[in-house]
Formats: sequence, C-alpha cells, structure tokens
Amino acid sequence: MDVTQSFAATFVDELAAQGVESACISPGSRSAPIAIALQRHPKIRVFVHIDERSGSFFGVGLAKATGKPVLLLSTSGTAAAEFHPAVVEASHSGTPLIVLTADRPPELRDAGANQAIDQQRLYGTAVRWFFDPGPPVEAANASRQWRRLAARAYAEAARGPVHVNLPFREPLVPTPGEVPTALGTQGQTVSAGRTLATPSQVTTLASALQRAQRPLVVAGEMRDGDRLAPALNRLGLPVLAEPSSQLRRAETGAAVESYEALLRAGWSLQHGPDLVVRLGGTPTSKVLSAWLSAASAPTFLIDPEHAWRDPDQVASHVVSCDPQGLLEALPPMDRSAWRDEWLSAGRRATAAIAATFVSTPLHEGHIVRALASRLPENAQVFIGSSMPIRAADSFWPHAKTQQRFFGNRGASGIDGLVSTGLGLAAGRSNMPTALLLGDLSLYHDMNGLWAMRRHGLRATIVVCDNNGGGVFNFLPQAQHQDVFEEIFATPLGLDFAQVARLYDLVYSPVSDRAGLEPAIADAVAAQTPTMVVVKFKREDSVNGHRVCWEAAAAALRA
Amino acid sequence: MDVTQSFAATFVDELAAQGVESACISPGSRSAPIAIALQRHPKIRVFVHIDERSGSFFGVGLAKATGKPVLLLSTSGTAAAEFHPAVVEASHSGTPLIVLTADRPPELRDAGANQAIDQQRLYGTAVRWFFDPGPPVEAANASRQWRRLAARAYAEAARGPVHVNLPFREPLVPTPGEVPTALGTQGQTVSAGRTLATPSQVTTLASALQRAQRPLVVAGEMRDGDRLAPALNRLGLPVLAEPSSQLRRAETGAAVESYEALLRAGWSLQHGPDLVVRLGGTPTSKVLSAWLSAASAPTFLIDPEHAWRDPDQVASHVVSCDPQGLLEALPPMDRSAWRDEWLSAGRRATAAIAATFVSTPLHEGHIVRALASRLPENAQVFIGSSMPIRAADSFWPHAKTQQRFFGNRGASGIDGLVSTGLGLAAGRSNMPTALLLGDLSLYHDMNGLWAMRRHGLRATIVVCDNNGGGVFNFLPQAQHQDVFEEIFATPLGLDFAQVARLYDLVYSPVSDRAGLEPAIADAVAAQTPTMVVVKFKREDSVNGHRVCWEAAAAALRA
Repeated sequence: MDVTQSFAATFVDELAAQGVESACISPGSRSAPIAIALQRHPKIRVFVHIDERSGSFFGVGLAKATGKPVLLLSTSGTAAAEFHPAVVEASHSGTPLIVLTADRPPELRDAGANQAIDQQRLYGTAVRWFFDPGPPVEAANASRQWRRLAARAYAEAARGPVHVNLPFREPLVPTPGEVPTALGTQGQTVSAGRTLATPSQVTTLASALQRAQRPLVVAGEMRDGDRLAPALNRLGLPVLAEPSSQLRRAETGAAVESYEALLRAGWSLQHGPDLVVRLGGTPTSKVLSAWLSAASAPTFLIDPEHAWRDPDQVASHVVSCDPQGLLEALPPMDRSAWRDEWLSAGRRATAAIAATFVSTPLHEGHIVRALASRLPENAQVFIGSSMPIRAADSFWPHAKTQQRFFGNRGASGIDGLVSTGLGLAAGRSNMPTALLLGDLSLYHDMNGLWAMRRHGLRATIVVCDNNGGGVFNFLPQAQHQDVFEEIFATPLGLDFAQVARLYDLVYSPVSDRAGLEPAIADAVAAQTPTMVVVKFKREDSVNGHRVCWEAAAAALRA
Repeated sequence: MDVTQSFAATFVDELAAQGVESACISPGSRSAPIAIALQRHPKIRVFVHIDERSGSFFGVGLAKATGKPVLLLSTSGTAAAEFHPAVVEASHSGTPLIVLTADRPPELRDAGANQAIDQQRLYGTAVRWFFDPGPPVEAANASRQWRRLAARAYAEAARGPVHVNLPFREPLVPTPGEVPTALGTQGQTVSAGRTLATPSQVTTLASALQRAQRPLVVAGEMRDGDRLAPALNRLGLPVLAEPSSQLRRAETGAAVESYEALLRAGWSLQHGPDLVVRLGGTPTSKVLSAWLSAASAPTFLIDPEHAWRDPDQVASHVVSCDPQGLLEALPPMDRSAWRDEWLSAGRRATAAIAATFVSTPLHEGHIVRALASRLPENAQVFIGSSMPIRAADSFWPHAKTQQRFFGNRGASGIDGLVSTGLGLAAGRSNMPTALLLGDLSLYHDMNGLWAMRRHGLRATIVVCDNNGGGVFNFLPQAQHQDVFEEIFATPLGLDFAQVARLYDLVYSPVSDRAGLEPAIADAVAAQTPTMVVVKFKREDSVNGHRVCWEAAAAALRA
C-alpha cells in the first residue's frame, strides 16, 4: 500500500476514534487521499459542498450545534483561503474546527506549480494551533506518529479552530480496487479539565454582591448558557440576557423582558446598577453597552476563555473560571424589590411595544414577535448579523424551555450565515430549525442554499427584506444623501422568488401584517423547506423602532 | 474638520493622483470614511459589490485588463478575510491591487469589540507590502505622511497586491453637509524601471541557440505577450503558445496549432527539442510539461518576476530580465526545416481534429472552436480554470490580431471566475467580452453576476455544463466508483435557466452540435448579456478528446 494512502486511512481513523463525526469537504485532486478515506469511514458523515466558503461556515454551524470538532477539508490553492472567513468566526466564537488543507509537497512549492500557494500559517493568528507534518514517509513508528497528530489536532480544537497542512506526493488515489487500511491501534485518549472557581474568586464576588444594593447580571452569547439558569434563579438578581445567551427564559427567574426599551427610557436613569456581573460574549446592544459604561459600576467579567471581552474597558475584575461553579457557590441574595422593579418595568414596556404593533407598518419587531410566537417548543434559531441579531435582542420574548439561539457573534460577519444556519440544522436534525436573516446576508451566502437539497436538510428561512442594508439607516451615514443609497444601502434588486425556485424552496412572500403570522406558521409546519420573505421599508423600520421606544417610555412614566 | 475625514480625503486624492482609477468597495461602517471619499472623488470610478469575495475578484479582473493598480476596500472583520482568495490569485499572477481594510483602533482590538479581528498581516506572504499607519492623528506634516503612504502603496502595487490596514476612531462619517477637503499638494511621482537584459545574458542565449538544431519556444500566460510577437517572428523558431500567452496568432510567425495533439502522438518522439526557451507562466498542458521534462533539453527560463516557475526542475538557466529586449537582441535563426515540420504537423492535426467534430457528440472542443469562430476581431476572452483552460489550450486556433485571452492562472482556483471575467469587461468596456466557464465555477461565483446589471456591464457567458467537475473524469479517481460521483464529480443539479432569470440574463441553452454556433453567434451579437449553457455528458468529453488525439495521431502517421 502506498504510504500516502496508509497515512490518510490511519489519520482519518484516529480522528473518528477521537470523536469526529462530521466532515465538510469540497471536490479537489490534491485532497483526494483524505476525501476518499473520509467518505469510506463508517463513523464519519461527509457533507460535500462545492463552494468551500459555504462548506466552512456549514462546518461552523455543525460545530456550534454539537459542540464537537468538525473537520474541514480543502484541496490546495485558493480553496484553502476560502476557509479564512469561517476560521475567523470560529476563532472568535471558540468553535471547534479541524481545518485540513491538502498541499503540494515542498519540491512543488514556490516553483510555479498549479494551485500551489503558501499555505503555511495561512490563517495567521486565527487558529489555536498549526502544524505541517510534511509528506507522509515510511517509518517504523509511522502509524503512531499519524495517530498522535490526529489526537493532538482533536485536543487542540476543543478551544477553537486548528489548522493542519497536509502535503501529498502523487499518486493521490489508491490503485483501483484497493482499499487502504488504517494502521496501528487507537492512539491517545485526550481529556481536558474545566477551570473551577477558586475559593478566593468566590469570596471576592460574594462580598461585593453582599455590599451591592442594585446588582445586575448581563448575559451575552453562550452556547450552553442555559446550564446557568438554576444558579441565576437561586441568586435572584435581574438578568439582562440576550437570546443567544440561552438565558432569556422563565427558568432564569429574573430575565428582564424588553430591557432595551427600559434603557432607552428615562426610567434607566433612576435604575443604574452598583455592581455588574457579565457572562458570555460582549453585549450586542449598543444602548446597553453605553448605559453600563456610563454607570461606572464595579464589573465582574466572568471570562473562562481569557478573551477579555470588554471593549468599553468597564471590567474591574476579570474572573477566569467556569461560570457555573462560581455562580452555584454564591449565597442567595435578597434584592427582591430591585429585581421586581426591573421585571415589572419590563412587562409594562413589552405591553406598550406590543400595542404599537397593531398600527405600525411592518418592521423587524413584527417579524421577531411572529417567529417567536409560532416557533415550536424544541426549535433552534439561527439569527443573522447586523439587523436581525439586534432586532431579536430588542423584541424576542422569553423563550420556551428547549429553544436555543445561535448567531455568528464571534466576528459578526454577514458572510456565511445561510450555511452556518444549515450546519445547525444538520447538527441537530431532530430539532426544527429557523434562520432569521437580512436580504443582503441571504444573497451573500446564497450558494449555501445548495446544501439543503443535497443533504436533505429541513429549515425555515425567514428573510427580513428591506432591499438593502437597513442597519445603515440607523447610522449617521443616512444623512449623506449623495452617497447613501449607492455605497451604503446598496439595494439588492433581486427577486427572491427566483432564488427559491432555483433551490427548490417553497416561496412565501409577506408584505403586510395580516399575512405574517400565518406565513410563518405554515412554513414552520411544512415538510418542505420554505423561504418566507417579509418585505418592508427601511423608513418604516426606523419609524417603527422609534414608536416602540416612545410607547415604552410613556408607559414607564405613567 | 475631523482628522479621520481629512486623512480619508487626502489619502484618496493622492491615490487618484498616482493613477488609481477604479475602486471596488462593499458596504460597511468602519470603512465609511474611505468609501465616502472614493465615491465623492471625481477621478475614481466606484464599483459597489455586496459580496466582498466577488468584489475582490472583480478587482483582479479590472487590474488584469488595465494593468493599473485597482483599489479594494473592506470594512473590518471577516469582510477583510473574504478578500484572501483574490489576493492569493493576484499574488501569483503579479496583478496590481491596493487592498485597504478598515479596522478598529488599537484600544478596541482583542477586547471583544464587534467585527474586530486581527487584521495585521492578514494575507500573510501573499502581499508584496503591508503597512498599518495607526489611526490618523493631527500633526504638522500629516498631509505629507498621508500622501506619502498613498504614493508608496501605489508604487509597491506595481508588482502585485499590497495591504494597508487602516484603523479609524469614531466619528466615522463627516458632519452632514460638510465635505472634507484633501490637504496638501500632490505627493511623490513614482517611476519604476524595467530590468533589461545584460550583454552577457544575450550572448549566452544566442550562443546556445546557434548550437541548437531543434530549438523550441514555449510560451505560457503573459498579460502583454503579444509585444513579443515581432521578435519571435524574426527569430523564426516554432512556438508552442497557449492562448493566454497572447502569442497563439499569425503575427508570431511560427505559433504551432494543436500542439497538444502532436505531443500526444508518436510524432513527438522524433521531434524532441535540443533547446527550450520558456516565456511567461508555467505551461497549462500536463502533456507538454511531461514531454519537456522527458526531453531534458537545456532550458532557458526567462523570468522577469523572479518567480522560478519551474515545477519540473527542467530549467538550466534562469534569466531574470525583460523578455522583449532579450529576444530583440538575438540574431535571426535559420531553422526553417525544423520550424516547418512543426507548422505542417500542426495543420494536419488541426484538420484531423476538425474532421472528428462532425461526428462526435458535443464536448469542450466543439465549444472552444465555435466560440473562436464567432468571436469578434477585437474581443477579449476570460477562460475559467480546470477544464475550460485546458480545452482552450487544446483546441483554440490562431487568434485574431486584437483578441486577448485571460485566465486566473496565478493560483488556478475555480473561485471568483465570474467576477474576474466581469472585471475585465469593466476594465476594457470598449472590447466585447466573453467568459468561458465550467458549471461548477459559474455556481461558485454566481454572486458575481449581480455586478452585470448593477454596473451596466456587457459580456457573453458560455457555460460548459457537464453537471459536475468534468476534470475528474480524466483523473484516476474516476476508477473509484464507490466515491466518485459523491465527492469528486459533485453533480450540481441546478437549472441555469433560473440563474439567468434571477440576474436578467438572456438564457440560451444548447444541447446539440447544430445549435451551438448559432447560439454563440446570437449571444455575441446581442445587446443584452446572454448566458449560453452548453449541456454535454462527461463521458462524451472523455471519449471526444480520445477520438481527437487518435485522429491526429493517425493523420501524423500517414
């Protein structure tokens, strides 16, 4: 058996033994040894994507859904560079990816060979670990080397993306009829611990909380934030939780509804915190960040990943430990008056906002509320960057127990969102999946839709279609009319009915409030993948948001 | 005036003064200062693209067409990583690009800020020059610093892509009503010389040629290779020129038709060279490379870019100088018998191949010949990677005087091809433009089609649609039937009629030989952009090629 083929069979076998279950691959010649070994391995599910960019973001979604390292495989050349945006997202969201790039051997590098580029450290600082073992060669302990490489890649990927560059010499495929076998026996078992809170970390936070009269918990994106709900409930503090924290739900005890409306109203001036505990990612809401920054309260940033997610430099304590043990070790608090002020204000704001919905023209708020009300109990939602993630933060109500929320908040790109959402659908195929995306994002990763039919995925895609980049209407550039439409709003001018037809999706257009909930209900219940396209005007969005905040403010003053 | 706005206006003004005429930008917030300055500058044409990947490959096409540095601008985050594949192509093809990535200022880096990633040296070794000037600050000589930065970027870009990372602090847009003015007066004039051949280089090559009885010229991709035609004609040697060398034309004097057929036939065994002069990129044809490698003749690699494009390690002399002066300085050769053997064999092979076309089912050969025969005198052709570039090399006849041929042969990716072709169309809008692409490439960069309507571009797109990666049918993996269709051929299963409708293109399907030429003729003559989709079977392609080579071999034996 050729050494390249033995390597591929052994390396892939060890990856599977370590726990890799899924691989996203794209057609290529140099990558053929690994591609064939993956496709033939009984324990690995292969997802083929023609567009490597879509494939890599699909892998990000798969890994976010399952929490397990997903394999990406590309051939040599620009195909490897196509992974870069997804690797960056995985890096900033701590998503486990094992990126394998096939390469030419050293003698064909920097020599004008076809599809030969410099793939060494191609993703720069975006990967946790890079290794290039050189082309496989015969050696007495080769199978142990190869299995060790797989075990190491798997272990390093627990914290984020890793990159293994694999140069291969020809022949690149086995002799026909020959099936290479994996050599050696399973390699290292790798286990990683969790950083537990020290007694001193617990004591410091507990004392600060005891002294505080108006302590607040702020929860950003966390893949498994719901595991913190019981501890937070016991603690009894108001929690400002965005949907992707998995904590905006009744189980958290004091998750405040419509907090953004409270912060935008005068009410918030009398309700500044004197202590903040921050969990998960940086808050999405700029209003929340600005308000916290102005409050200047002592802030405990719970930071198990050592990521220092604190762009406003408000953290007074950076606490590097797993949040669950820390929160469970804290004594329960009695700040029920303070907590109830928040909860009651949240309920009043929510009611006032809901009342505006019956008279304002369609905007993101209607879409978020309709999706939330029609979503099945056990659904997962992928929320796109830019406007959707902000609209969900502003308008999503308490989630149902099993619902889960994802976004690409690592780097907050508008690229690869269709694929990441569909990767989630593939990763938890037993859960109904909905994608909430803007029209520009849908277009940006339209190629990602190809995976639906190819891999038999079910998902409902809800498009907030305001014919361009609606977020810019909320920013100062909107006042520069000579350049605004051309270089910021960038109206797309595509008919999504054609897109749906191209990819065999049911097309469900919505252009008024009455049609919205039925369309979403039908889509969620349908057996065939459906794209609900909700058309609305960017001005209606700006006005609709303003009306919401004014109504909430008035209700809070009353 | 805010310092950020002054910087943007001044920096852009100097880029325009240096000679930048076109900018490809995508919507974003952090990049707004530069985007607004570009859009408002009277000398710069802005091309907006929503998908940065398409935009960057469009820039590659623009720069290949014009030979002048084209500006790319992205906002911070994954948007910047989206440029990576196009930067790699530009790097390997020496295409002038000035890549500007807006960034967060240092205080927002590595701190969990939105869309803040590590953009330092993001493209690794793929750029000729990287610089990060830090956020603009007030200084006595600020305008000179800023203009010098633009002049330097422009000068460095002459050899390939450069990357300037531009961190900006808020505010990111000017006060409404205020138009920032460029400061200072125009900066440095930058000029670059050309590396002329030394007398010793000329003498060495001239003596070798004088001694050689069977000298051969091999010409790979060269943007402006046609400038070498008079010198080669005077030299009087057989020239194996691929279309993208711009030398497969009558003016070259002895450009051999159908050389691949000669090399595949027994004829080539009696016609090995005893000296080879290589110009331009690595030959596309594997048959040619293998034959040259086996011939082991002394080989002069003319290498003005110091690129050492010699994966087979056959070069005996690497000659770093501009080829034109070198060739012009050589004495004319009298190798007319040797030359005429090649030319005559080429004509016989061409006739034999043409005779097969009337009876074989449609394959790439028919498409190439039909396009060549119907293409206007002054057209430019963008030829996609994988099968199209090989088919054009195999079957394209002598080009007409003004026709020009381009590909992405730097890194030979199948990504970004639609956009690169349309960038060519934008760069030389007075020339009719045709794109010859495979179906997977068309899909991979389908988003690139958006630019046609948005920027009013005219081009004919000819798709070789064999429902998958036809190149793999020619490779050993075709014999592994258990995995072949799933992970190599990857049939696309999309209806291109829907794609045409989505992007307002005339859809012209072809499925038999009779329909091919009329469809291409109509498309080339049409005022509206047309997509000609030629459907054929991958097996017919493999068989059709075999029949061609056999017919040519028989004709040469006769």
